[in-house]
Amino acid sequence: MRDELRRVDVEASGSTYPVLVGPGAASALPEHVARVTRSARVAVISDSNVGPLHATSIVGALERAGLTATLHTFPAGEASKNRATWSALTDELLDAGLGRDASVVTVGGGVTTDLGGFVAATYMRGLPVVHVPTSSLAMIDAAVGGKTGVDTAAGKNLVGAFHAPGAVVVDTDHLETLPAPFYAEGLVEAVKHGAIRSEGHFAAVEEAASALLSGDGTNAPSIVHDSVRIKAEVVAADEFEAGIREILNFGHTIGHALEAASDFALGHGAAVGIGMVLEARLGERLGVTESGTCARIESALGPLGLPGAGALDGDRVLSYLGADKKTRRGRPRFVFLERIGVAATRGGTAHEAPDGEVRAVLREALK
Amino acid sequence: MRDELRRVDVEASGSTYPVLVGPGAASALPEHVARVTRSARVAVISDSNVGPLHATSIVGALERAGLTATLHTFPAGEASKNRATWSALTDELLDAGLGRDASVVTVGGGVTTDLGGFVAATYMRGLPVVHVPTSSLAMIDAAVGGKTGVDTAAGKNLVGAFHAPGAVVVDTDHLETLPAPFYAEGLVEAVKHGAIRSEGHFAAVEEAASALLSGDGTNAPSIVHDSVRIKAEVVAADEFEAGIREILNFGHTIGHALEAASDFALGHGAAVGIGMVLEARLGERLGVTESGTCARIESALGPLGLPGAGALDGDRVLSYLGADKKTRRGRPRFVFLERIGVAATRGGTAHEAPDGEVRAVLREALK
Repeated sequence: MRDELRRVDVEASGSTYPVLVGPGAASALPEHVARVTRSARVAVISDSNVGPLHATSIVGALERAGLTATLHTFPAGEASKNRATWSALTDELLDAGLGRDASVVTVGGGVTTDLGGFVAATYMRGLPVVHVPTSSLAMIDAAVGGKTGVDTAAGKNLVGAFHAPGAVVVDTDHLETLPAPFYAEGLVEAVKHGAIRSEGHFAAVEEAASALLSGDGTNAPSIVHDSVRIKAEVVAADEFEAGIREILNFGHTIGHALEAASDFALGHGAAVGIGMVLEARLGERLGVTESGTCARIESALGPLGLPGAGALDGDRVLSYLGADKKTRRGRPRFVFLERIGVAATRGGTAHEAPDGEVRAVLREALK
Repeated sequence: MRDELRRVDVEASGSTYPVLVGPGAASALPEHVARVTRSARVAVISDSNVGPLHATSIVGALERAGLTATLHTFPAGEASKNRATWSALTDELLDAGLGRDASVVTVGGGVTTDLGGFVAATYMRGLPVVHVPTSSLAMIDAAVGGKTGVDTAAGKNLVGAFHAPGAVVVDTDHLETLPAPFYAEGLVEAVKHGAIRSEGHFAAVEEAASALLSGDGTNAPSIVHDSVRIKAEVVAADEFEAGIREILNFGHTIGHALEAASDFALGHGAAVGIGMVLEARLGERLGVTESGTCARIESALGPLGLPGAGALDGDRVLSYLGADKKTRRGRPRFVFLERIGVAATRGGTAHEAPDGEVRAVLREALK
C-alpha cells in the first residue's frame, strides 16, 4: 500500500497534468496511463540500466491493469540521446504496430524522459506520454515542463519539441537504487530552484542534502515536491519559454558549455553547479547580484561532493557558449540572481554580459 | 503592384494565422516574416527545383526588407522527405548559427512545407515558420493546418509534429511555373474539399479545372481561397485531429496505401483521387453513401487526366492499409460520404469496414 501522495497540478496549453510524488507512487501509474490513452497499447521506453531495475515490473503492472505494454530499451548514457536512437526507437514502435491511439511511458533518468518524450512528441505527430522519472534529476527537473529533445554534435538539446506529459509519476522509492553521485546531480537543480525563487527551499535542500545522500530518504518527498511546485509555477507562467521561464536556465548557459567542452564527461548536475557559481560571480562583478551570493551557492553545493571542472580549457568553453540555444543575435545570455531566492528580472530575464567579464570569470575558474 | 489579396484566418492553439491568396502575394511575405520573427535571422528552405525558380528571389526580397536570410536547399522529390534530409537541414541551420529567435520560411510544394515545417517544429524546440506553397497541392492542402512530418520505410508521414505556421503566403502567380500534371494533383484535394463539405465548390472545381490546367489562371485565386476556407473551418473545429478533422482524410486511407505500395511512384494527388473513388464505392457497397456518388467523383476527376493505379498488387495495398496512421486497434478506418458535399459523421468520422468488402473493392479496381 502506498502513503498518501503529494500532488502538483501543472498548467500546460490550457489544460493541466498531475505530478504525483511519494513512496510507492508507481502503483498509481496504470490508472493515469488508462486516463490519457485512447487504446490499450502502451510502449514503455527505458534504458539498459533502469529497464531491468524498474521498467520490467512496470510493464507487468500495466499488463495486470488490462493494458498491452511492450518494453523498448536503449543503451544507458547521454551518448544515446541523439537522433539515431530516437530514430531506432521510433522504428521499433512502428514495427510493434503502435497506432496513433497508443501511448508512451518513459521510465528512467533525464536522458530517457527527454529522448522518450521526443519519440512520443513526433510519433505520428504526437502520442500521449506519462513520465516515471527514476533519478533525482529527472524527478526534480527533466520530467516536468514538457521539454523533450536530443543532442547533436553542435550542442545539447538542439533538436526537440515542447510536448506536455499526461502525467508524471514520481516514486521516491526509486531513489533507493540511485548511486549517490547521480542523486547529487538532481539536488543541484533543487538548489537552483531555491536560488531563483525561494530562500526557504534553498535552506531546506542545504540542510537535507547529507542525509538524503547517505540513504535516509525521509525528506525526499518534501524536497522533490517543493522543487516540482516551484518549477511548475514558473512553467505555468510561461510554457513556451518566451520570458520568465528562462530563469530556470540559471547556471545553464555556462553549464551547457562546460558539458559540451568536456565532451559530456562532466555530468549535467555538476556542470550546472559550476555554472551557477560562475554566473553568480559574473552577476556580482556586474553589480546585478548581491555580494556574497556566489559564496552561499558554493557552500550549499558543498555537501553534494560534485566533481570540479578539472582541466577544461576556458577558450573551448567560450566557443561553445556561442552555440547555446539561448543565444540571441549571436551572443550568449545569462540569468542572474538579485540574491538567493530572487532572480533578476528587470530588463528581461536573460542578459548579455561583456565578453571581457565572461572571459575573466571563466579564466579564473578554469585555468 | 499586387491586387487586393484574399485572406482566410485559421484558428490554431488559441491564436490565428492568416493565409493570404492572390497573384503577387509573395510581395507581402517580408512584412509577415517580420511580424512573427524575434530576430532578423531567417532560414529559407526550398528544393533543387523551386529554389532557383522562386526561393532565390524571395531571399533577395527578405534581405531588401532588412532581414538576414540564408537559403538551404535539398534534392527535389518525395524521396527526400525523410529523417536523413531533416537531420541534414537541421545541421545546416546549426552551422549557419541560427538561434532560437530565428525563423524559417519554406518555399515549395508539399514535400518542402512538410519537411521544412518539421525542421522548424523541432529546431531548438520550435521556430516560427511561414509557408510559401508553390504547388497547387501545397497551396490547397499541405501548407494549411499545421501538420509537418516525414516518411519512413513503414509509411508516409509517420514521424512529425503539429506546428502551426505564423502565416501562409499563397502567390497564385507561382502556379504559372507548375507543370499541368502537378497542378492536377492539387486540384484533387480541391475536389475532396467539395466532396466532404460543399457541393457548390465541388461543381466550381469541376467547371474550372480544364481552363486552369491549360494556363488560364483567372479562377485560381477563388478556387484556392475557397478550398483553404473549407480546410480552415474543419481544422479550426479540431486542430489535433481527434474528430471532425478526420473528414479531410477522405480518400487518404486507400490513397496512402496505394502510394506506399507503388514505392511512391504514384503521386499523392493521383493516389488520393483513386482513393476517393474507391472509398466512395466502398461507402456505396456498405449503404452509407448515396448511390451514384462514386460516379460523380470519377466524372469530376476526369478533366484532371490523372494516371491510373496501373499494375499495383491488391494484396500489397492491403498490407500497407494495416500500417496506416489512421489505424486503430490494428484495423484501417475510412471516411465515407453521405453524398457529394456531406461527409458521413454519424457514429464518428472514421469507420471500420469488413475486410471482405475492402478486398473486393481493391481487387475489382486493381486487377
